[in-house]
Amino acid sequence: MSIDTLRNEWDELNREYTELENCNRLYIELLEQLHGHQQKSFNEIKHQRYRMNQITASLRQFKGPVSAEEKEKIEDLQRMTLKRKAQLHEIEQSLPTKSGRYLQIILGDVNVSILNRNDKVRYKDDYEKFKLILNVIGLIMAFFNLIFNYRALELAFIFLLVWYYCTLTIRESILKVNGSRIKGWWRAHHFISTVAAGVLLVWPQGEHWQLFRTQFMYFNVYISIVQYLQFGYQKGLLYRLKALGERHNMDITIEGFHSWMWRGLSFLLPFLFIGYAFQAYNAWTLFKLTYTPADAPWHVSVMCGLFLLLFVGNISTTLWVVPEKIRE
Amino acid sequence: MSIDTLRNEWDELNREYTELENCNRLYIELLEQLHGHQQKSFNEIKHQRYRMNQITASLRQFKGPVSAEEKEKIEDLQRMTLKRKAQLHEIEQSLPTKSGRYLQIILGDVNVSILNRNDKVRYKDDYEKFKLILNVIGLIMAFFNLIFNYRALELAFIFLLVWYYCTLTIRESILKVNGSRIKGWWRAHHFISTVAAGVLLVWPQGEHWQLFRTQFMYFNVYISIVQYLQFGYQKGLLYRLKALGERHNMDITIEGFHSWMWRGLSFLLPFLFIGYAFQAYNAWTLFKLTYTPADAPWHVSVMCGLFLLLFVGNISTTLWVVPEKIRE
Ligand SMILES: CC(C)(COP(=O)(O)OP(=O)(O)OC[C@H]1O[C@@H](n2cnc3c(N)ncnc32)[C@H](O)[C@@H]1OP(=O)(O)O)[C@@H](O)C(=O)NCCC(=O)NCCS
Ligand SMILES: CC(C)(COP(=O)(O)OP(=O)(O)OC[C@H]1O[C@@H](n2cnc3c(N)ncnc32)[C@H](O)[C@@H]1OP(=O)(O)O)[C@@H](O)C(=O)NCCC(=O)NCCS
Repeated sequence: MSIDTLRNEWDELNREYTELENCNRLYIELLEQLHGHQQKSFNEIKHQRYRMNQITASLRQFKGPVSAEEKEKIEDLQRMTLKRKAQLHEIEQSLPTKSGRYLQIILGDVNVSILNRNDKVRYKDDYEKFKLILNVIGLIMAFFNLIFNYRALELAFIFLLVWYYCTLTIRESILKVNGSRIKGWWRAHHFISTVAAGVLLVWPQGEHWQLFRTQFMYFNVYISIVQYLQFGYQKGLLYRLKALGERHNMDITIEGFHSWMWRGLSFLLPFLFIGYAFQAYNAWTLFKLTYTPADAPWHVSVMCGLFLLLFVGNISTTLWVVPEKIRE
Repeated sequence: MSIDTLRNEWDELNREYTELENCNRLYIELLEQLHGHQQKSFNEIKHQRYRMNQITASLRQFKGPVSAEEKEKIEDLQRMTLKRKAQLHEIEQSLPTKSGRYLQIILGDVNVSILNRNDKVRYKDDYEKFKLILNVIGLIMAFFNLIFNYRALELAFIFLLVWYYCTLTIRESILKVNGSRIKGWWRAHHFISTVAAGVLLVWPQGEHWQLFRTQFMYFNVYISIVQYLQFGYQKGLLYRLKALGERHNMDITIEGFHSWMWRGLSFLLPFLFIGYAFQAYNAWTLFKLTYTPADAPWHVSVMCGLFLLLFVGNISTTLWVVPEKIRE
């Protein structure tokens, strides 16, 4: 190939580059416009909320006897307010959201909003898959720890737990930013689990740990299995929700969805409650260990308190969530 | 206020809502257009790179004796290729980038690109401030650990180190995604530091740890001070780079920038090298501890290896970066 041919090729490439430059210029303009629209939407949403609150406050003043006509009008306004709130929430889903304090500290001021519905679903999917994979690894490691009593293997497992729960808290905060209605307790649960795993890490090997060790490993095996069942349930929910979201998909009705959810939930709940009982049992075992053998390290009582906390939090949240789901 | 007034107010709010809805619709359209432009830019950049590589490969074939005219044309092409590469890089700064493997695992598939130059600078600024604050806290804790020998205080400090270094690796990966040219070693350095802090966490209290403890705390005090100096240097660089970036700011010239950098660097380097010597000294102390007293736990030799690794990596990276900066 001669140099002149190359030069011609270059010139052609140059023309294409000019196009790219234009495309980029336009893109940057669009980005700015987008930013403007976002700002406008934020302000308008805030305004709507403010005015609605004012109207609701005024409505509350109509307490005394009102005519039938007035009553209807009031109910009308109340209904519309509720609907509007849902609409505003829907609009917010397409706008970026500021991260909470925790994410701000870990990640710094970077935006982790997902603006696209499909991408949101995919992210959630990914989160469930992550939990599944880590649970399988956890199950295998807990199993090996039941067979062998090597400190290194044990430490590797506990390090994995610390890392896993810590990562969960981060991912769940991102889910929260993206509009998930995950209950605060489940996130707190994973914070507490991170702390518990940290305490285990520094619990010196000794008589007390050896007495608790086997039970702890069995507990982990059980929890991994429960997590697997939970994965099945969440996956099913997610799949069905996605299908419901697609307008042209007529395979699933709201009723079908609810009946599936009920079957899934009633299958899952007994396993969950056994898990909670196991947590209470752990707390009880640890409580006894604080007395005999003598000279228990502080880790025993702290772990006892943490398991108790997990037990109480889990059982009360589940007992509160399930009737709420029935009422829906 | 009568109900009808409220109703009127509601109707007005309704009109504003319609506006908001339109704004949101337009916004979503813009978002899609934006996406299209991004895709187009990605493809075109890829194409440009591919064709440029082909041209460069062809150019390499002109090895034998070429006429002066041809030589000039070749050099011309080479110069333009270099320039184009820089231009493409510039364009890429405004486009989102996929996260690396590490971020994908921790955060999941969420986009952490910052598309705006100012926000990028702010993010970096924030990162430096985060390091500074955590270093002050670390300094205080290391100091208290020198005065008191409480296990709880010690553990709190080591937990802080694990968390700090782990968070640094995440933030640095986000910086990397956003186009920082931070050397791979510094990120690896913080990974290794996380591991080292993890090992310290599980190092059982005992004679060996007590023999190393004081030296380790002094080391941390020293490192915190060096970090403070580094903060001053990076902050200065950042401020000057920002000023250089603003076209109308004539306070700073490229030469002024370079001379400032040189003064900063030559002030900083001695402190860095003393730090590296300290790391080597730590490795040496730990090496001796593996022999006497007898029965050293495995943590001693692992920590020895890690400090050696840090020492070698740090000193060779710095010795490699500085002459590179001179050549610039
Ligand atoms: C009781 C339970 C099955 C109900 O699940 P659900 O039907 O999804 O409940 P909700 O409708 O309240 O869910 C709201 C949101 O929180 C999420 N969520 C619920 N429980 C969660 C959990 N334990 N972890 C993470 N996310 C959870 C849901 O996926 C949903 O997310 P979305 O808004 O993004 O769609 C579920 O909370 C659960 O599995 N809890 C038990 C967890 C546990 O105890 N683990 C320890 C084992 S001993
Ligand atoms: C030697 C040194 C001062 C050079 O700094 P510099 O002039 O910024 O070097 P470079 O030009 O190579 O920097 C490239 C990028 O990496 C970043 N960077 C450099 N060293 C870094 C470090 N140690 N940690 C984090 N980021 C670093 C810079 O901020 C710059 O970022 P940018 O692309 O976003 O602007 C710096 O690397 C340093 O401080 N190293 C010592 C770190 C150390 O040894 N710590 C342990 C103490 S014993």
